[in-house]
Amino acid sequence: MYIPTYDDMLDAHVRIAPHIRCTPVRTSDYLNELAGCQLFFKCENFQEPGAFKVRGAANAVFGLNEGQAKKGVATHSSGNHASCLSYAAMLRGIPCNVVMPRTAPQAKKDTVRRYGGKITECEPSTTSREATFAKVQAETGGDFVHPYNDPRVIAGQGTCSKEFMEQTGGLDMVVAPIGGGGMISGTCLTLSKFAPETKVIAAEPEQADDAYRSFKAGYIIADDAPKTIADGLLVPLKDLTWHFVSNHVTEIYTASDQEIIDAMKLIWKHLRVVMEPSSAVPLATILKQPDAFRGKRVGVIITGGNVDLDKLPWMLGS
Amino acid sequence: MYIPTYDDMLDAHVRIAPHIRCTPVRTSDYLNELAGCQLFFKCENFQEPGAFKVRGAANAVFGLNEGQAKKGVATHSSGNHASCLSYAAMLRGIPCNVVMPRTAPQAKKDTVRRYGGKITECEPSTTSREATFAKVQAETGGDFVHPYNDPRVIAGQGTCSKEFMEQTGGLDMVVAPIGGGGMISGTCLTLSKFAPETKVIAAEPEQADDAYRSFKAGYIIADDAPKTIADGLLVPLKDLTWHFVSNHVTEIYTASDQEIIDAMKLIWKHLRVVMEPSSAVPLATILKQPDAFRGKRVGVIITGGNVDLDKLPWMLGS
Repeated sequence: MYIPTYDDMLDAHVRIAPHIRCTPVRTSDYLNELAGCQLFFKCENFQEPGAFKVRGAANAVFGLNEGQAKKGVATHSSGNHASCLSYAAMLRGIPCNVVMPRTAPQAKKDTVRRYGGKITECEPSTTSREATFAKVQAETGGDFVHPYNDPRVIAGQGTCSKEFMEQTGGLDMVVAPIGGGGMISGTCLTLSKFAPETKVIAAEPEQADDAYRSFKAGYIIADDAPKTIADGLLVPLKDLTWHFVSNHVTEIYTASDQEIIDAMKLIWKHLRVVMEPSSAVPLATILKQPDAFRGKRVGVIITGGNVDLDKLPWMLGS
Repeated sequence: MYIPTYDDMLDAHVRIAPHIRCTPVRTSDYLNELAGCQLFFKCENFQEPGAFKVRGAANAVFGLNEGQAKKGVATHSSGNHASCLSYAAMLRGIPCNVVMPRTAPQAKKDTVRRYGGKITECEPSTTSREATFAKVQAETGGDFVHPYNDPRVIAGQGTCSKEFMEQTGGLDMVVAPIGGGGMISGTCLTLSKFAPETKVIAAEPEQADDAYRSFKAGYIIADDAPKTIADGLLVPLKDLTWHFVSNHVTEIYTASDQEIIDAMKLIWKHLRVVMEPSSAVPLATILKQPDAFRGKRVGVIITGGNVDLDKLPWMLGS
């Protein structure tokens, strides 16, 4: 297991800078007052493909040597990693093969195809996904870029916190959602060196709290088919992300689905940005645990902005 | 009639800079491709009270001498001007009296009160509004800040285009929605001197096209109770804004309500910002008249971001 270093992150930033956006930081006096702390929101939903995952994807894609680049990249994902990897591959002009369950939303498939990604459908089971992916990779020779358990991906995600600290002039803590742990690991990687006094807090849905339980237990516990409105955070930690979580994360807080929806609506209304339920988990936990954040300079990473505008969570069931 | 000058705009920018945000400019490769031109979106919806109108309001409020400031300001409005003037008055710590029809949405009243504005309700008629406002002004001595037909307001709105040109390094045209014409007038004021080769295009809902018809006729024509989803654009031009529209605007384009809703959804989806139907009118007209914009560097001012998230236009009637 190769653990990416701070220098890998610096190299990644130089490599991907021409292909990503240095996203703006937004503030809201109203939300500051509500939360009792000074909030800074890093808008990774403003990346062209709408998610921070373009950082890690671009680092993997643009780090390939010419020989490997000809064969392209491959992954399995039905979320933002699939579209961000396709997007990065399109920018370099190389093939991207994505294995996706046939049950994935049509909109996700459309986005991957719009960026030139080639989709191979599998059944919605781990067995089918793994078998299908092995076949695709054998046929194409595409380099496997895991959605988060990959040192190139973690080094890429780490570039976000470097920008964030430079843009804000320093923060007491950075809060990011945790699913597989790619963004949290990148944040730990960067801040443990760049600003070791800055705490890294992970925020997780109560209904998919495997990282929280792993963190408390001291070893990886996986959820059994979790269900939450924050559907970007369903995947479990893996060895590489567990390394960063267990060594560098200060605390993991959780919030209920209703608290996540309420926080999402607050951000839409007062920051006026469109973001996913997953990206609302940090604010939900901050409002739930105000004493942990009171008076602090708190950075929040808004991880993604790809939502179905026809099915907003506060509209469902009404 | 005092016509504000370029120097008034420069003075306004110095005066209001500590109280407003230099809002970011967003781009989308997807929307560029769709429109066939290079689009730059100036996000005035990211002002703290959610609209560009804080510029003109802050210029009026912070330009008052101490004697007048004690008596505060007064206006009649049920829209963003009311909340932005209340917000600016709150920042200076002076009274703000707002006359508002009793039928105005509760959310608008709540926002004005949250910023410390004092609301006096009137009946929803011009007669009642004028009588009520005269009484309020006589009682309070508050300085009348008209929502748009005021040189201080127009000079304030003009600061937006100065930032826009500096941030983008120049544009072939700037497109903004037109209602009463405050933002368009400020844009004309600034660009006619700062970048006289840059065209100013106004965008208007077909269902409230009084500015378009006035522009074609050569004199002010007012609509009789217009109705459109772009409810920020219902008010008519007045002498001061007509001066700028008739002298400096290159063209006025219109779009239907359905085209406005479609454009709004495109911006929410691909720029990932929350904005009002009124702010979608420019993109709707650009997509409707692609030949007029093809290959150009086109600036679009996203004027405001205050919407009712429970009543989004594409959800209504479904």
